[in-house]
Amino acid sequence: TIVRVLEEQESIEQSLVGKRVLITAGPTKEKVDPVRFFTNHSTGKMGYAFAKQAASLGAEVTLISGPVSLDTPRGVYRIDVESAQEMYEKVLEHYENQDIVIKTAAVADYRPKKSYSTKIKKQSGELEVKMERTNDILKALGQHKTSQFLVGFAAETTNPLEFAKQKLEKKNLDAIVVNNISQEGAGFGGDTNIVTYINGKGEQINYPLQSKEELAKNILQHVVNELKDE
Amino acid sequence: TIVRVLEEQESIEQSLVGKRVLITAGPTKEKVDPVRFFTNHSTGKMGYAFAKQAASLGAEVTLISGPVSLDTPRGVYRIDVESAQEMYEKVLEHYENQDIVIKTAAVADYRPKKSYSTKIKKQSGELEVKMERTNDILKALGQHKTSQFLVGFAAETTNPLEFAKQKLEKKNLDAIVVNNISQEGAGFGGDTNIVTYINGKGEQINYPLQSKEELAKNILQHVVNELKDE
Repeated sequence: TIVRVLEEQESIEQSLVGKRVLITAGPTKEKVDPVRFFTNHSTGKMGYAFAKQAASLGAEVTLISGPVSLDTPRGVYRIDVESAQEMYEKVLEHYENQDIVIKTAAVADYRPKKSYSTKIKKQSGELEVKMERTNDILKALGQHKTSQFLVGFAAETTNPLEFAKQKLEKKNLDAIVVNNISQEGAGFGGDTNIVTYINGKGEQINYPLQSKEELAKNILQHVVNELKDE
Repeated sequence: TIVRVLEEQESIEQSLVGKRVLITAGPTKEKVDPVRFFTNHSTGKMGYAFAKQAASLGAEVTLISGPVSLDTPRGVYRIDVESAQEMYEKVLEHYENQDIVIKTAAVADYRPKKSYSTKIKKQSGELEVKMERTNDILKALGQHKTSQFLVGFAAETTNPLEFAKQKLEKKNLDAIVVNNISQEGAGFGGDTNIVTYINGKGEQINYPLQSKEELAKNILQHVVNELKDE
């Protein structure tokens, strides 16, 4: 009946009321000089889809975003950052008191060891750029976790599932979303994705090709159920 | 009188009819692996403004564009490229028979010497990325120039005018547009620019702060006058 449908919809719509959700999205830029930088292909679409869906499920959403060309979803508190270091600082600053933390950002794991305030002149011949590791944000979140439900992402071209399970355990996550970027319709840039969700109990859910909006909604709904079961 | 105004407008509108204009725009991406790459801050706005204005002045416009998130201006033939090498090949392929060539693209001058088809696993400690020079597109255009009017761009933080004059001569350009990226309102990303135009006769025109659209129109109009004077 119509009444039943409305009730179900109501319960879906309300499922994150009173919850605080922190989402990271987009790439980071690691400067070599005022013109050149290292970055990656993330467009932020997956993270922004999570932010939009979490807000429409009633959550209080904080979105910490690298440089992307997307509009802030309605009702979402957005903080812009550029480098991995800025992302690290802002995420840790807002970590406490969150109920769900979803780290979709594709944070650079290396940055140039030295960055210049004026443009480097090009020279003939080769150039060696010394790179150093950035802070591992997900690892830090796993270490400082209290009651947050922490969801990581993995984008791998080789043995994605095996790699993801190791990452889940090593970084003390509650779940990981595995993104096989070598599959058509999955990963960076597009409006669709194909992923596998793995939780700490070892349960796997395969999500077939669907829009990132759809996927964000389905995964959030599943996370809500996991929270209820605890 | 109204008639006179209309006539003037007509003559501006028609000033590039029968002319072929080649414009390059945007950054290039130089891959390290399927996820990571080197690039720069160019958004392509300056080049797309030139393409739009040249088309509206009646020219047959070819736009060779790096990865940007801009719509193709009406009536413009657009060719998408990603790397400096692709840009080099496409530009040379379309160089012959052009009347005006404006190279606004911020082409990477270095690329990783080796690029990987699967994602590099991060390791502890430092990483050295060996970079090699890409082909110098503007230099090649200067060398192969027949009757094209060749306009280069320079974006410098230190001694921009002096550097630009050297570049104009060394690369056999007909004019160079100097972009002092350290000035507020100039350079990458924004909708405005502040530039100095220098031609082969050593004439300098300073264009104060204005929209990139306005600037493209003013510079094109000036180039048309230079062509007439020849």
